[in-house]
Amino acid sequence: MQDSNRYDLAVIGSGPAGQKGAIAAANLGKRVALIDRDDMIGGVSVHSGTIPSKTIREAILYLTGFRQRAFYGAGETLRANISIAELAHRVNAVVERETTVVQEQLHRSGIAILHGAARFLDPHHLEIQSGARRQVITAEHVLIACGTRPARDPKIPIDGKRVLLADQLVDLEKIPHDAIVVGAGVIGLEYASMFAALGVAVTIVEPRPAILDFVDDEIVASLRDHMQRQGTTFRLGEKVTRVGVDEGRRVRANLESGESLTAEVLLHTVGRQSNADTLHLQAAGLAADARGRIPVTENYQTAVSHIYAAGDVIGFPALAATSMEQGRLASYHMFGRPWERRQLLPYGIYTVPEIAMIGRTERQLVSAAVPYVAGIARYADLARGQIAGDRSGLLKLLFHPESLEVLGVHVIGDNAAEIVHIGQSVIALGGTVEYFRDTVFNYPTYAEAYKVAAQDGLSRLPRPGV
Amino acid sequence: MQDSNRYDLAVIGSGPAGQKGAIAAANLGKRVALIDRDDMIGGVSVHSGTIPSKTIREAILYLTGFRQRAFYGAGETLRANISIAELAHRVNAVVERETTVVQEQLHRSGIAILHGAARFLDPHHLEIQSGARRQVITAEHVLIACGTRPARDPKIPIDGKRVLLADQLVDLEKIPHDAIVVGAGVIGLEYASMFAALGVAVTIVEPRPAILDFVDDEIVASLRDHMQRQGTTFRLGEKVTRVGVDEGRRVRANLESGESLTAEVLLHTVGRQSNADTLHLQAAGLAADARGRIPVTENYQTAVSHIYAAGDVIGFPALAATSMEQGRLASYHMFGRPWERRQLLPYGIYTVPEIAMIGRTERQLVSAAVPYVAGIARYADLARGQIAGDRSGLLKLLFHPESLEVLGVHVIGDNAAEIVHIGQSVIALGGTVEYFRDTVFNYPTYAEAYKVAAQDGLSRLPRPGV
Repeated sequence: MQDSNRYDLAVIGSGPAGQKGAIAAANLGKRVALIDRDDMIGGVSVHSGTIPSKTIREAILYLTGFRQRAFYGAGETLRANISIAELAHRVNAVVERETTVVQEQLHRSGIAILHGAARFLDPHHLEIQSGARRQVITAEHVLIACGTRPARDPKIPIDGKRVLLADQLVDLEKIPHDAIVVGAGVIGLEYASMFAALGVAVTIVEPRPAILDFVDDEIVASLRDHMQRQGTTFRLGEKVTRVGVDEGRRVRANLESGESLTAEVLLHTVGRQSNADTLHLQAAGLAADARGRIPVTENYQTAVSHIYAAGDVIGFPALAATSMEQGRLASYHMFGRPWERRQLLPYGIYTVPEIAMIGRTERQLVSAAVPYVAGIARYADLARGQIAGDRSGLLKLLFHPESLEVLGVHVIGDNAAEIVHIGQSVIALGGTVEYFRDTVFNYPTYAEAYKVAAQDGLSRLPRPGV
Repeated sequence: MQDSNRYDLAVIGSGPAGQKGAIAAANLGKRVALIDRDDMIGGVSVHSGTIPSKTIREAILYLTGFRQRAFYGAGETLRANISIAELAHRVNAVVERETTVVQEQLHRSGIAILHGAARFLDPHHLEIQSGARRQVITAEHVLIACGTRPARDPKIPIDGKRVLLADQLVDLEKIPHDAIVVGAGVIGLEYASMFAALGVAVTIVEPRPAILDFVDDEIVASLRDHMQRQGTTFRLGEKVTRVGVDEGRRVRANLESGESLTAEVLLHTVGRQSNADTLHLQAAGLAADARGRIPVTENYQTAVSHIYAAGDVIGFPALAATSMEQGRLASYHMFGRPWERRQLLPYGIYTVPEIAMIGRTERQLVSAAVPYVAGIARYADLARGQIAGDRSGLLKLLFHPESLEVLGVHVIGDNAAEIVHIGQSVIALGGTVEYFRDTVFNYPTYAEAYKVAAQDGLSRLPRPGV
């Protein structure tokens, strides 16, 4: 009889990396256990990360009439009607549905779901504890996809009311008039831009001198300009030294420069702390780095060859789509299934307006000494952009001036995260910029931006190809 | 000295086909004149067709909170606040901007814009009349892109108030409680589904037994089901014999079956009448068919070899994007520029929810005896669909069971007209269904539907490729 506590693969964590790693192994006929806390199936992504923030974003875009502001006066918007309770209700409905979808997928794949907190006993044994219940399982392989939690900073007294972590936002009782956002990473900018869309006066404090340094400069400038026009202030190269709540019930943040800022609320989004510290890694012969991240090879293998790690716990980029791919690749590698590594990972950043990219940036091309030409389409010049009132959107195509190979696509504006996949398939399948020039696109769509950008870029060549 | 009234190409009409034909010829260094009435630059597409209807649609989707109904009660919507005046204001702003964009493009290309109504004097001479002003030009080639106008039916007494043509909708004083839409072509269904989204009780009367017979059956069924759940009634295989206005100020439509329907307004969308009857075609040695359409070869050449025709005046599909391509191809052919004909024309139908397709339908594959497998993704199972509350969306991939070549993509739902272009590039560049399975898509996006549909389809193969 097969030992019911013996698995080919034990996956710690049921977020995007864990789920897809588990399903990939199950599809290869492996016996798989997936371990997570009862209330956390789907991981942070579903419960307090991607899904809640994107749901809140969608509601905010709709309720504030962001897209239509160009046409309807502010009085026409429903800002006054927005209650956090409504947002929370909506978030709960979506989270519940998404949790069900994830559970059904796991069940269909025949994966054993073990509820509880996992810790290593030795490199092949895990203890799973839930309340008083405790079980031990044996695993030939382990995939650590335990994710992260918001990092705490002793200087910042989080109280969940005035001084908040991102996942506490849904607990706010009302939309504040002003806010300080500490940290201008992806999460900080996503929430700051949502606040800005709601009409909140936002001040962003970030110790680094620039934001989103992996994104195209022109796209970043466009985001910053858009947010500034909505009343957002950027304090880059500036550190928060102390946070307190004034007697007037306003949050005060002292800055290293000696200045101080006050606002109704402060949102702390600096860094994420790995959950690996709960896993008793040393029993497995593993160690995390200073920020709790687990070092891995390009195949997501840790220093202990039968143990893999994927998702937020290994660090950048910590995006759901990328984590799914990492989980899959880890399982394929451990079970020897051949797999072509996708070099073309898209980025989607759900700021307002949203940002997406595929391929290389101008900075990367310059440093690799690859010649390129850029072609640009502005949403304002597209019928679709005019209809939506999107005035800050733009799509930039980078291509090689001789081979016409498409090298990168960078988009900001409505639907950026969707239409970037058109460029992705053209790059992946070896199409040139002429593909975009010669293709018929539905009218009116944002996708037409590819054609306009291709025509623009080709007209910049010494001998125009138009 | 060059005769200032002599052109390499005279284009009649400045809609999508005329514009793109004129620009293509100008880019080849040809001397081009574009003729249209002063107030009609951009054609019907800009002034009373595509742009106004899509702008109204966007406003309706926003104002009624269509996408969010799943989350917010009807009381939360702004339906009561919608005034036609607001819609008309918005339409005017977009039309004005789009007209400017078109004019700038034409000027930049060095095209002469001649204002007035054109008619043939002989195969190479056109008279252009505007008020008392009259000029004659000589053209080596002519491109007829004169478009269409709504067809009138003597049985239907259009009064612009209760009995309307589609382009009179913006003149309505208020949103009616109920409406009869005569004709279930693309235009009829687009407006009927917008009315339905506004909560109008719609009855559609159509003599043919089916709607959208060029679209995938499952997609059509989904549209019909969605509209029926919103209270729309379909009377297919039924003809209107007489229309009148009752004393109670309601429109009455008598049907061939003997029944009669009443409603606040009746929208007549049956057929378009070609504008070719105004061109004095016989002077050029040309004749139109019974519906005023001009017969052309696959290169858009008419019976007179130096005269071409493109756009709505040649009939199906009469979509803006396709007309642009026809205009371009006509110019390339007349001036001997080599051009690869695009077989892959996308269709975008802006019903609510919207529909898009590329490649072949199941019906076409069956009749061509091409074996295929279908894979389906439902928006309700995607995180993006849950966030938007889109419950009726679906994407269907058709692919060859052996070569895995992608044969067709059919989509209904939010963003269908955008994401269909991902499938288009994969088909055009020879990718297989495995491309979708193996690609990383941004999360949460509708584009993920391709991956889910690919996995579904591949799992149906005798030896699953997953």
